[in-house]
Amino acid sequence: MPAPIDFYFDFSSPYGYFAAEKIDDLAARHQRQVIWRPILLGAIFKITGQQPLPGIPLKGSYALHDLHRCARWFGLPFKMPTRFPIAGTAPSRAFYWLQAQDPLRAVELAKALYRAFFVEDRDISNPEITANVAAKLGLDKAAVIAAVNDAAVKERLKSEVDAAVERGVFGSPYLVIDGEPFWGADRLDQAEQWLARGGW
Amino acid sequence: MPAPIDFYFDFSSPYGYFAAEKIDDLAARHQRQVIWRPILLGAIFKITGQQPLPGIPLKGSYALHDLHRCARWFGLPFKMPTRFPIAGTAPSRAFYWLQAQDPLRAVELAKALYRAFFVEDRDISNPEITANVAAKLGLDKAAVIAAVNDAAVKERLKSEVDAAVERGVFGSPYLVIDGEPFWGADRLDQAEQWLARGGW
Repeated sequence: MPAPIDFYFDFSSPYGYFAAEKIDDLAARHQRQVIWRPILLGAIFKITGQQPLPGIPLKGSYALHDLHRCARWFGLPFKMPTRFPIAGTAPSRAFYWLQAQDPLRAVELAKALYRAFFVEDRDISNPEITANVAAKLGLDKAAVIAAVNDAAVKERLKSEVDAAVERGVFGSPYLVIDGEPFWGADRLDQAEQWLARGGW
Repeated sequence: MPAPIDFYFDFSSPYGYFAAEKIDDLAARHQRQVIWRPILLGAIFKITGQQPLPGIPLKGSYALHDLHRCARWFGLPFKMPTRFPIAGTAPSRAFYWLQAQDPLRAVELAKALYRAFFVEDRDISNPEITANVAAKLGLDKAAVIAAVNDAAVKERLKSEVDAAVERGVFGSPYLVIDGEPFWGADRLDQAEQWLARGGW
């Protein structure tokens, strides 16, 4: 059984959203599982000195243009959120809480949260909104809000972020396939070829 | 006659080197000309607050790995230069000096300079070395060194960099096709599709 693909992403990352819509099919074409791992770029950017794209002169406005063009390229609905970037803390905690019980359903939740943010322009950094998205999938709203405030869940997210940094993760999306790292939605082609050919 | 493609690049940019090896064939497949435009990222990074990849924690070491993998992906020889990054001032001035006389030969020179730096590990920021590379193409070495120190040539490069910034160029490689900007060697696929389909 080949190793699963580690898929790191931040809920505030639009390129992460694109990858989230593609990764399961990509992996399935090569008989791989995917382990979804939300991280917090805000914490990681403190280490790398990077900053969110919108604030960077010249690059920020290019990125906005590129995002819409990439969405059409990938055939995905996309609306730049009114409030951006946001902290992915609440949705990430909800994800890890659910993953501990039901990993497949947690992936469904991650996709629903991404779409809420990048298609419906709902601010998922608000625990209420994250819980509403979860409730639509049949989860208990109060349990989700409790999870977002749960010390063990908080610790789980923190340790995931620390482990990601330890592994060299600095952006979103970021894949690790058999030890090989691929950063960016524009590396999905290479990632797929790596799976097909076993490297080059 | 369709408009030419503007190809912005920095002589110290490895992804710019990859694009330089691909751009003419790509353009020719779509009956386009290419206008080569060396720029100085050092000057542009002062505006955007960016910094060269090697100095960025986590991202720097990933980039080094990605460069070698991309070189193999593109089927290009590549050796990370011992001294990196360098200022592209001397090779860029030599380029614009020659372009004013013979644009096609200037492209030949640009490719030779890129290969000198990224394949043969020769420090082309040194005007002597840039002139030696030019001499191998049959150009007069003394004339190249004089050009690197010529006030009008200096001004030409400066105005090219200013015009690039004015246009929003913030990285290398950076293409503009019929007004549409594409940043990065990982946008060559989209750039080619844009030429084929006229956008999407």
